[in-house]
Amino acid sequence: MALVVQKYGGTSVANLEKIEKVAEKVIRTKKAGNDVVVVLSAMAGETDRLIQLAHQAAGDPDKREYDALISTGEQLTVCLLAMILIKHGCAARSFLGFQVKVHTDQAYTKARILDIDKDVIKAELDRGAVVIVAGFQGVDEANNITTLGRGGSDTSAVALAAALGADVCDIYTDVDGVYTTDPNVCNKARRLAKISYDEMLEMARAGAKVLQPRSVELAKKYAVPVYVKSSFTDDGGTLVTKEDEDMEKEVVAGVTYDRDQAKITVVRVPDRPGVAARLFGPLSENHIVVDMIIQNASVDGYTDLTFTVSRKDIKEARRILEEVVKEVGADRLEVDEDVAKVSIIGVGMISHAGVAAKMFSVLAQEGINIMMISTSEIKVSCVVKAKYTELAVTVLHSAFGLDRA
Amino acid sequence: MALVVQKYGGTSVANLEKIEKVAEKVIRTKKAGNDVVVVLSAMAGETDRLIQLAHQAAGDPDKREYDALISTGEQLTVCLLAMILIKHGCAARSFLGFQVKVHTDQAYTKARILDIDKDVIKAELDRGAVVIVAGFQGVDEANNITTLGRGGSDTSAVALAAALGADVCDIYTDVDGVYTTDPNVCNKARRLAKISYDEMLEMARAGAKVLQPRSVELAKKYAVPVYVKSSFTDDGGTLVTKEDEDMEKEVVAGVTYDRDQAKITVVRVPDRPGVAARLFGPLSENHIVVDMIIQNASVDGYTDLTFTVSRKDIKEARRILEEVVKEVGADRLEVDEDVAKVSIIGVGMISHAGVAAKMFSVLAQEGINIMMISTSEIKVSCVVKAKYTELAVTVLHSAFGLDRA
Repeated sequence: MALVVQKYGGTSVANLEKIEKVAEKVIRTKKAGNDVVVVLSAMAGETDRLIQLAHQAAGDPDKREYDALISTGEQLTVCLLAMILIKHGCAARSFLGFQVKVHTDQAYTKARILDIDKDVIKAELDRGAVVIVAGFQGVDEANNITTLGRGGSDTSAVALAAALGADVCDIYTDVDGVYTTDPNVCNKARRLAKISYDEMLEMARAGAKVLQPRSVELAKKYAVPVYVKSSFTDDGGTLVTKEDEDMEKEVVAGVTYDRDQAKITVVRVPDRPGVAARLFGPLSENHIVVDMIIQNASVDGYTDLTFTVSRKDIKEARRILEEVVKEVGADRLEVDEDVAKVSIIGVGMISHAGVAAKMFSVLAQEGINIMMISTSEIKVSCVVKAKYTELAVTVLHSAFGLDRA
Repeated sequence: MALVVQKYGGTSVANLEKIEKVAEKVIRTKKAGNDVVVVLSAMAGETDRLIQLAHQAAGDPDKREYDALISTGEQLTVCLLAMILIKHGCAARSFLGFQVKVHTDQAYTKARILDIDKDVIKAELDRGAVVIVAGFQGVDEANNITTLGRGGSDTSAVALAAALGADVCDIYTDVDGVYTTDPNVCNKARRLAKISYDEMLEMARAGAKVLQPRSVELAKKYAVPVYVKSSFTDDGGTLVTKEDEDMEKEVVAGVTYDRDQAKITVVRVPDRPGVAARLFGPLSENHIVVDMIIQNASVDGYTDLTFTVSRKDIKEARRILEEVVKEVGADRLEVDEDVAKVSIIGVGMISHAGVAAKMFSVLAQEGINIMMISTSEIKVSCVVKAKYTELAVTVLHSAFGLDRA
């Protein structure tokens, strides 16, 4: 008997017919002799509807209230699935973040799970019930509702799997696995049978939407095998696991892009110790993640600092930085939202020289100007003009031998 | 400085424009120097939509899951109002049942509030914030979400007013006060300036929808002055309070009707001690409220027992009673859903003889057959065929001198 955590995304619970299908899958897993914990997202489109409502109500809504508002979508789906399972004679019970409880920090809209109280869940599993947990939500120490950011239900699922010592965490979604790149952008994309945690993490961070990066971090940390599968077919699937001999030996495992990028340049910053901290400290305190950072060579005691943030953080980042620009005596802020980040990822890079150089030359051949570069052991990312996104992805996918035959 | 509890019903928060109007009213009350606690219902129609969804999902849905599902409507409105108040520079914070906390028993779909934790609310009021509490919902001891039944937000508001020792509890609704009868049924209905707790309680129990009966019970118990007002005009209003000299000296204060009635007859029950308990015990255990009860005179050791329940409880009542009918050796069940209850209410009845007799004769003159009768000190109720509801209300309203000049 195994303990299985199953997560179903928004398209898998988009309406009652689809939730009935989920119930069938859950009952089949249960009847095969497994303990089952289910994590659900909100119905497809529902969270967006709530976000829109919040912005209509208040433009830049209070974050505590915003999180409490947008967490209601998951409450609906978990209750509906529980009702349907019980109707079919399968013991089941739904739990919200405060009931489980999923304890997070207080970073509204992008909270991190600190721990999960296993006792309630174990008691339900012991009585033979299916446990259904609302994804995406938690509570902080003072019982304020928090949410985990886009794709947060993946993280809810992996965190539960880790806390309960589950044998596997199945992530059911609308695609049948992890691809070498987005099949919507490049029709030669191939599905990967397996991928390592590290590659998956870099791909997720670099814009692949199939899993939330934090979920992969947790999966790696607690060695939870994660299986990405389609809700609509039993074929396919990609196992995210420890690196092993069986994995494909390509230098580059995948190409990703991220359009949710904005480039900020602080022009003519006095180049003295502590200035960077003065700029990035307040952003970090406000939970704004800075991705790539470039500092130009200093000229006459002044430098330019360029970095990227998520587009949704632009408004707040600008508000914060305009203060700082005055204080440190910089010239001005420049913001460019017309950019995208294109990345190549692969553990093979560690032992192969010239991968980055090849990427730059492939892009140059197509006349694509590179505005920023950042590299890690297993990733090279370039910021380019947004209009070149598809072209860059397609030529890189082909150049690194990823095209389907 | 006073402490004011304001409750706004579904039509008052039906959309963002209306919630903006509520915010204006709240800010005005706050600026006048009051502490303000707001209780909100869900947007008009939202709870019905959720109820329908639950029944589509599972026919006869699990009650725990049902309550958790239908309580989401209030979560939306409280967060939206908090965002809007904060946008206007008014400190505010929303609270759900589990956060306040509103502690109830475990009678899902019709739970009763046991107590309310005042500390969280007082701390917020002390920092000058408006406190916004989701109506209709609470949590039991094990943190399961419960709901308080139709109109439950009234009860949430009065319970909060009682717990906090508020100076007044304003119930904003879509009518401008309590009327002698439903103006939609009788165009000569008059608004009452004041009404006693006891009369209001009987009217609410007898079908007047303006306040949930439990809210009036609590208001009476804790002597909370309740002001029923229109959200859309500053005119009018009815004060529900202790009986006093100023009140109108009519024998009958109002006429009500209740279409949510079904008549059940258990035919040929062996007439021996304990049989009634055997019938009504299981109904009560399942939280089904039995309203009027009539037992026929015994013939040959057998009797018929007739009683009324809410129509929504018919399915469950039938399921429970069919078992009992077999066990006690009764003949059969008969269910009639084509009935309504018409009532006259007034504290003046205590000192006036012949009020009930007058009611019966007025109905008889119109050819309306009375199927069941029940009386209390200040109320007479008759069950009649549903089709006579409007006629009965209109002639009684006129016969007891309530018609507007």
